[in-house]
Amino acid sequence: MKALVLSSGGIDSTTCLGLAVEAYGRENVTALSLTYGQKHSKEVMCAEEIAAYYKVRFIHKDITSVMEFSNCSLLERSTDEVDHRSYAEQIADNEQGRVSTYVPFRNGLLLSIAAAIADSLYPGEEVQIFYGAHADDSAGAAYADCSPEFAHAMSTAITIGTYGNIEVVAPLIDMNKAEVVKTGLDINVPYQYTWSCYEGNEKQCGTCGTCIDRKEAFKANNVEDPVGYEN
Amino acid sequence: MKALVLSSGGIDSTTCLGLAVEAYGRENVTALSLTYGQKHSKEVMCAEEIAAYYKVRFIHKDITSVMEFSNCSLLERSTDEVDHRSYAEQIADNEQGRVSTYVPFRNGLLLSIAAAIADSLYPGEEVQIFYGAHADDSAGAAYADCSPEFAHAMSTAITIGTYGNIEVVAPLIDMNKAEVVKTGLDINVPYQYTWSCYEGNEKQCGTCGTCIDRKEAFKANNVEDPVGYEN
Repeated sequence: MKALVLSSGGIDSTTCLGLAVEAYGRENVTALSLTYGQKHSKEVMCAEEIAAYYKVRFIHKDITSVMEFSNCSLLERSTDEVDHRSYAEQIADNEQGRVSTYVPFRNGLLLSIAAAIADSLYPGEEVQIFYGAHADDSAGAAYADCSPEFAHAMSTAITIGTYGNIEVVAPLIDMNKAEVVKTGLDINVPYQYTWSCYEGNEKQCGTCGTCIDRKEAFKANNVEDPVGYEN
Repeated sequence: MKALVLSSGGIDSTTCLGLAVEAYGRENVTALSLTYGQKHSKEVMCAEEIAAYYKVRFIHKDITSVMEFSNCSLLERSTDEVDHRSYAEQIADNEQGRVSTYVPFRNGLLLSIAAAIADSLYPGEEVQIFYGAHADDSAGAAYADCSPEFAHAMSTAITIGTYGNIEVVAPLIDMNKAEVVKTGLDINVPYQYTWSCYEGNEKQCGTCGTCIDRKEAFKANNVEDPVGYEN
């Protein structure tokens, strides 16, 4: 079995990479990192460092132009600031019932690119695409493209569209962030190289939604987060 | 309702564009054309000309780098010639039971890009993505990413991943090529601007699989193909 891991340099996808290496060995694992116009390049740098740590093949692609028409606050081209309120507050305040950091069909796009590359690298072979969505992201329907139903539907489409060879696996989909961190700590995932913050400053801000989640996940495991914060 | 039509400049997608304009009016329709490393740029030029004919917005994106690892014969980077045998002969002769012109998960990738762009252009609005797969392409499992099951699975994933706003429609999925041409002729689709040939010469070759299918489709309708052939 080959594995292609969507790697953003964050906690979830790095945990997935650790699980894939454990399951199939580093020579059968490729990490794929995508630039889609994020405000900062920090996460791709981290993803590359983590791939080097695991000694797996690293592929990076830039698909920024596809997001040319989006004003999502995560994107460099957006004039909006990243909203630091909770998901629930954002959803209640948003006409479309979405969080401001939802990037249009991003995860579907990333999974499709992963499928195209997996089928190019290993035509006719069985490949698992590791997708790091976890339960907190889909809670309250915050991110529509993080739900178990979404992962399942994409997997079905990818399997059909690749003559049955490729599937999506989402090993963290029923875990909250604390459980993800626990899973990673058990297999010595190098969280010191990860990056979660939506801002691209020298240190993680410590106040955006994803920083807060990260801090709490380490705290729940009684472990100090190896990465520091501004606040 | 808004419509985003995947437009390759060929018979099928141009018929879809005609149907979308008929259904929703040209001001609600956008044509999207993708360069993914095809051997020639003829089809994108045709797609642009057809969008101009219909006076619809035209968007073009280049995602060639995603196909960097594929050796599919349709791609510029491939050393393989386009196979001019029938699909059935190709499948029988291929280790993976595929046609040589299957581009790795191409249609899934194109649909995902269409979803990302549709959701960027019209956040929170209902959009139909028109997808021109037809029955001949999926017959004998030639193209896994042209089957009704595939279109349905992608539509499900896209609808879930876009908070229920976007769906894929495939109005030609049960038609053979002759029926597609009949459908288009009934609404005056400008087939004189279309291009079907896998080769990028001045005229269509007349001998590749898609040229043969095209010729027969016009013949079945007792109409002369407005585009000429070398052979």
